Amino acid sequence: MAVRTRDPDVLASAVLDGDRTALPRLLSVVEGGGEAARAVGRRVYTQTKGGYTVGITGPPGAGKSTLTDRLIGSLRGGGAEVAVLAVDPSSPYSGGALLGDRVRMMDHALDPGVFVRSMATRGHLGGLALAVPEAVRVLDAAGFPTVLVETVGVGQSEVEIAGAADTTMVVLTPGAGDGVQASKAGLLEVADIFVINKADHPQVAELERDLSFMMDLATWPNGWRPPIVRTIAVKGDGVGDVLAAIEAHRAHLSGGTGPSGLSLLEERRAARALSELRRVLAALLDRHVKDAVGESRYQQLMDEVAARRVDPWTAADEILRGVTGSGRDR
Amino acid sequence: MAVRTRDPDVLASAVLDGDRTALPRLLSVVEGGGEAARAVGRRVYTQTKGGYTVGITGPPGAGKSTLTDRLIGSLRGGGAEVAVLAVDPSSPYSGGALLGDRVRMMDHALDPGVFVRSMATRGHLGGLALAVPEAVRVLDAAGFPTVLVETVGVGQSEVEIAGAADTTMVVLTPGAGDGVQASKAGLLEVADIFVINKADHPQVAELERDLSFMMDLATWPNGWRPPIVRTIAVKGDGVGDVLAAIEAHRAHLSGGTGPSGLSLLEERRAARALSELRRVLAALLDRHVKDAVGESRYQQLMDEVAARRVDPWTAADEILRGVTGSGRDR
Repeated sequence: MAVRTRDPDVLASAVLDGDRTALPRLLSVVEGGGEAARAVGRRVYTQTKGGYTVGITGPPGAGKSTLTDRLIGSLRGGGAEVAVLAVDPSSPYSGGALLGDRVRMMDHALDPGVFVRSMATRGHLGGLALAVPEAVRVLDAAGFPTVLVETVGVGQSEVEIAGAADTTMVVLTPGAGDGVQASKAGLLEVADIFVINKADHPQVAELERDLSFMMDLATWPNGWRPPIVRTIAVKGDGVGDVLAAIEAHRAHLSGGTGPSGLSLLEERRAARALSELRRVLAALLDRHVKDAVGESRYQQLMDEVAARRVDPWTAADEILRGVTGSGRDR
Repeated sequence: MAVRTRDPDVLASAVLDGDRTALPRLLSVVEGGGEAARAVGRRVYTQTKGGYTVGITGPPGAGKSTLTDRLIGSLRGGGAEVAVLAVDPSSPYSGGALLGDRVRMMDHALDPGVFVRSMATRGHLGGLALAVPEAVRVLDAAGFPTVLVETVGVGQSEVEIAGAADTTMVVLTPGAGDGVQASKAGLLEVADIFVINKADHPQVAELERDLSFMMDLATWPNGWRPPIVRTIAVKGDGVGDVLAAIEAHRAHLSGGTGPSGLSLLEERRAARALSELRRVLAALLDRHVKDAVGESRYQQLMDEVAARRVDPWTAADEILRGVTGSGRDR
C-alpha cells in the first residue's frame, strides 16, 4: 500500500520495508537537504545491501543517455533490477523526467524493475557531491543491486560525482576533440573504463590512439589499466562488451587485495566513506564559520587578505574566534 | 651590527631595517612554526616589497640545482641580488647547506648579494605549504628582488610549493621517462616554462614532442602557452634563454589584465593569498578539531565511518560539538 506522507521517518521505513512507491518522495527529502535529509542519511547508512554503483560521465552529446538506456535494457534482459540517477548540477529542475533526454528512458516507465530519477542542485548543504551518495544509498537500501549514476557534462563536480562509484565509465566520441576534453576535465584520473561511442565515425582510431598514448604515460598501481570499448549505442552495438568490462572490473576489485588486507572494492568504498566524512565536516564547519563570523564580514576578510592589507593568520584568528565563541585562541 | 637574540620581534625588526645577519635565525623561527612564526608572519606580511618569485621543480636528477646555480650566476652578473629557498619535504635536516647538492652553491658563499637557505619539514602547523610562502615574504621584505624556490622532487607538496610562485619552471631531462613523470605528478598544470636540461641527450626531440603533444591537448585561457627551453646547465648553455623566458612570462603577467581589472600578476598573487588563508584556516580548524575531540577519538570515528558502522553526519556532529563546545548543533 502506497504511503502518502512526507514524513522522512515514515518514508524511510516504507522504503526499507520494500515499498518503492515511497522512493520518489524519500529522494526529494534527500535532495532538499537540511535536517530531514540528514535524518534519512543516518537512518539508511547502516541499512545498505552492498549494491554496485556504476558512474557514467563524459562530454555532452557523447551519447551517455542512449548508452545508459541500452545498459538498462541489457540488465533487465538478464532479469536484474536497476536504478538510474541522472545528475545535472546546472539544472534548476529535478525530480523525474524533466530533462529532455530523460524522455527516452520512458521506454522503461512501466517496468517496476527499473527506477529512473533526475537530480539537480537544491538546498542540500554540501551540494550534489553529498546528496548523490545519499541518494545512491537510498536506492541500494531499497534493494536495487545496481545503481547507474549518469552526469550530464564534464564539469568538475560532475566528474567527481561520477568518479565516486565502484566502476566509473567515461564515454567519448571521435572527431569531437574529446581527447582534449578528457585530458582537461580530469576524466583520465577517474576512468575505470573508456567507451568510445559513435564508433562508426572515421576518426575512431585517432581517438583510441590518443587515449592509449595518454594511458601509456600513467601508472596503474592496482594492476587495472582502463580498457577501451567501442560502441554504437543507437544500434546497441558493443553494449554487451561494456557490461563485460564492468563485470571484469568488478571481479578485479572484489578479487584483489589492497594494502590494508581488505579487498580493493572494500578499500575503495572505505576511502569514499572517509572522503564523504571530510566533505560533511567541511560543509558543516564552513556553514558554522559563516554563521559565526557573518557572511559579509567573512567576504570582507577574504578581500582584505587578497589585497594583502590583512595577513592570513590574523584573518584566520578572527574567524576561528567566531567559531569557538571565545577570544582564547588569539 | 649583528643581532644575537632569538627574539622574533627583534629579529624581524633587524631584517626589516636591512640587517641580513639576522636572516638565518628569523627563517628558523618561521620554519619552527608556532606562535613565534605566526608573529613574524603578521609582522612581515604588509612589509613586503613586491619581489618576484620563481619556482623550480622537476624530478630528482634533472639538474635543478645546477641550473639554479647558473641562474644565480647570471643574475649576479647583471648586478641583481638573489635569494634561494631549497625545499626538501622529506629531509629531516634544514637550516643551510646540509643537503649534498647545496655544496655547489658555496661558490656564492662569500657574496653578500646571494642568500641560500634549505628548508625541510619542522613543526610548522600546515607544513611547508605554509612555511615556504612565509619564508619567501621574509626574503622579499629583506630586500631581495628575486627569490628562487627550488624543490628536490615531484611529490605533491613539492609541486604545490613550486607552483605557488609568480613564474614556475619545470625542469625535465630526456631519456628518463620524464614525460611520464610530468604527466603523473601534475607538473603540466603548474608549468609556466618547461626546461629540457641535458639537451645534448639523443632523445631530446622525443621529450620535446611528447610535451608539445600534451600541451596541444590543453587550453591557455590567459594566452600564455609554456615555452620549451633547452639547456645544458653544466656548461651554462641556454641559461640566458631561461632568464629571457622568465622575463617574457613576467612581462606577460604584468602587462595582461584579468577579469577583475587587475593585472594577471596581481590576480595570481591575490589568488595565492586566498589559498593561503584557506590553508591557514583549515590547519587551525583541523588542530582545533583534534584538540577538542581528542586525537584518538577522532581516529576512532574515522575508522567507524570507513567501516560503515557510523554514518558521516553522526560523526561530523560529534566532532562539531567538540569544536563549538556545545550540544546545540545536534
